[in-house]
Amino acid sequence: MQLTQIGVVHSPFDRASGTPVQPFCAAGTEGHIEVFDPYLDGLHDLDGFQRIWVLFWCHRSNRPKMKVIPYRDTVAHGLFATRAPSRPNPIVLSTVRLYEISGNMLHVGELDILNGTPVLDIKPYVSQYDSYPAQRCGWLDDNRAKRGVIVADNRFEMV
Amino acid sequence: MQLTQIGVVHSPFDRASGTPVQPFCAAGTEGHIEVFDPYLDGLHDLDGFQRIWVLFWCHRSNRPKMKVIPYRDTVAHGLFATRAPSRPNPIVLSTVRLYEISGNMLHVGELDILNGTPVLDIKPYVSQYDSYPAQRCGWLDDNRAKRGVIVADNRFEMV
Repeated sequence: MQLTQIGVVHSPFDRASGTPVQPFCAAGTEGHIEVFDPYLDGLHDLDGFQRIWVLFWCHRSNRPKMKVIPYRDTVAHGLFATRAPSRPNPIVLSTVRLYEISGNMLHVGELDILNGTPVLDIKPYVSQYDSYPAQRCGWLDDNRAKRGVIVADNRFEMV
Repeated sequence: MQLTQIGVVHSPFDRASGTPVQPFCAAGTEGHIEVFDPYLDGLHDLDGFQRIWVLFWCHRSNRPKMKVIPYRDTVAHGLFATRAPSRPNPIVLSTVRLYEISGNMLHVGELDILNGTPVLDIKPYVSQYDSYPAQRCGWLDDNRAKRGVIVADNRFEMV
């Protein structure tokens, strides 16, 4: 299992603290996904999609722990019941808004990722495949969750 | 960027041909995600979620090409405008239904993945983060798309 970096993020965020925790918290935040030359032909027809999944390798995340207090709660949960970036494989998914493709640069919105983060994959967001509007969502349905929290701090960042 | 296998798929599918192309095509299909011992504590509270994302390493996919004819169309598209499993990093996302967790075994439904596939990550599906019901979806909105196709053939399978 050998990973290949296919691109890199250009975003306004250089530190975890203050970075939006999810795309829905990142309204108005824009940036670019730069795709490296060998992969350019793979972008054909991507501009027909309003949203795209981008898979990132969170190179700045610290060592994973199996119990974590996520940004949006005050008590610990199992790591796999959270979207914390410090994971055995620190692969993070974001469904960002795709505005325009110009050569090897994807202009995107609702970006919640640190500048310089390696990109592993890009996939179209397909509502028929990916959208389940009203699902039971465990601790996130609970009143304890700090629903107002929309930006990260440095708890999962490598020092 | 070093990947770690955290678990393995137990599914009824031993070959690509006949495997559902997406979870929404896999109604009634059940299987298990086995999670390896070092990661068991990370499953705490996951049972509160109706659906989970599972990230797989498609170890049986063939070499990626930048233009592919996907299962659900008859013409070629850029690889990143498709969900084909043969990719520079053959990481596939499925949002499967979570029925029950028993020890290190997750009983799941709507599973569209080959038996024996390595598991890289598990995340909760959160409607607030992941659900965008009516998005523009490029060639998949087009009449040419073979919408009736719900199972794969062997075009992306390593021989």
